[in-house]
Amino acid sequence: MVFRPIKSTKVYEQVIDQIKSMIVDGTLKKGDRLPSERELVEHLEVSRTSVREAIRSLQIMGLIECRQGEGNFINQNFENTLLEPISIMYMLQKNNPEEILDVRKIIETGTVVLAAKKINESELKGLKDIADAFKVCRNEEDNVRFDKEFHYKIAKASGNLLIVNILNAMSSLMDSFLKDARKKILVDEENVIVLANQHELIYEAIRDGDEVRASEEMKKHLDFTNEYMRRTVNK
Amino acid sequence: MVFRPIKSTKVYEQVIDQIKSMIVDGTLKKGDRLPSERELVEHLEVSRTSVREAIRSLQIMGLIECRQGEGNFINQNFENTLLEPISIMYMLQKNNPEEILDVRKIIETGTVVLAAKKINESELKGLKDIADAFKVCRNEEDNVRFDKEFHYKIAKASGNLLIVNILNAMSSLMDSFLKDARKKILVDEENVIVLANQHELIYEAIRDGDEVRASEEMKKHLDFTNEYMRRTVNK
Repeated sequence: MVFRPIKSTKVYEQVIDQIKSMIVDGTLKKGDRLPSERELVEHLEVSRTSVREAIRSLQIMGLIECRQGEGNFINQNFENTLLEPISIMYMLQKNNPEEILDVRKIIETGTVVLAAKKINESELKGLKDIADAFKVCRNEEDNVRFDKEFHYKIAKASGNLLIVNILNAMSSLMDSFLKDARKKILVDEENVIVLANQHELIYEAIRDGDEVRASEEMKKHLDFTNEYMRRTVNK
Repeated sequence: MVFRPIKSTKVYEQVIDQIKSMIVDGTLKKGDRLPSERELVEHLEVSRTSVREAIRSLQIMGLIECRQGEGNFINQNFENTLLEPISIMYMLQKNNPEEILDVRKIIETGTVVLAAKKINESELKGLKDIADAFKVCRNEEDNVRFDKEFHYKIAKASGNLLIVNILNAMSSLMDSFLKDARKKILVDEENVIVLANQHELIYEAIRDGDEVRASEEMKKHLDFTNEYMRRTVNK
């Protein structure tokens, strides 16, 4: 591991830059343990405060995990990385909750096209299983989970990790800012039947590799749920 | 301003939570000066280190700006908020540069639909001006700028700030990870003519409020540029 000593005013930023270059050159990979705070202090010739500020920032972004007594590790998955910055930004910008619904619709109607092209047999089976679980379940808490999982599996099947990360942040934003809107729609059994049917049609279009139909069915599905959530939010 | 004293292990996270609640209840707004580190230390009853760690994290995310001798201010715009976390995540996940192109295409073909619905006269004029500037310019540096501006104006016209923020992060990711791909396409004058024509068609569709055509023209445009960048990247 090669470190370059640092001299500058915004030292914590340069500590992050050094950690970034260790990632770029492959010195640090997912799951790796970071050098200890003391080691970083010595090699980078910066204060302990600067090192801690840099490490805390990476922790808050969800990129690094601190394990008690073991040190700091690069996270294995980054699905919550964008959540903290995006949710604070969202609060500060005073965004409209409908923006979340629109972003989700735009991304998911495009993502399902990639999924219809790229999904493999086992992913397809997993998608069918979750659609079936949703269909027979009459508990709204479980169905919120099944519904999220259905959409998550489609994102994963797209093979695009950026999409998975962005949609994950949108899903958590919905949980925070649209409160129980997701659950309310599932209290009504008639809705569950409609939604289960929509999931089935999306699944079938993906299975058939029919990109256009997959996108259309996803659009119909999200138009239905978004309209319901809009009414709940605006009540 | 009402503070609640904090007692916990991950203290810096709780400092962030307190700052978040000041945002939610409207105590802190865009452009506001944050309480000083000393004030935060006193009111939250935490160490100076925890306060600094929390503040540095918000700075690194681009949510807070430190002005020498004046203190910390909530940023006025958040267009670089997602960049640091998303680019570190991108490096760690070893994403494929094509993922960026795919995300951009998905979001922009959807965004232009919103823009075609919502754009106002002055935004429309601004869009036309930038399309015209691109058309007559034969300097690739300037044209990279005009091209970015053209897409940025469409995102703004969608009225969805989340989209603006996400696309901004994608644009910066392209600059970082696709290096000069954006400029290379513009060195060839024939490409500039093709692209100027595509911009014109996108502009006209937006002007006519024709959502379907706007989306189709944006798709054609990005298929063209993405294909070119893919070849450049894979060479």
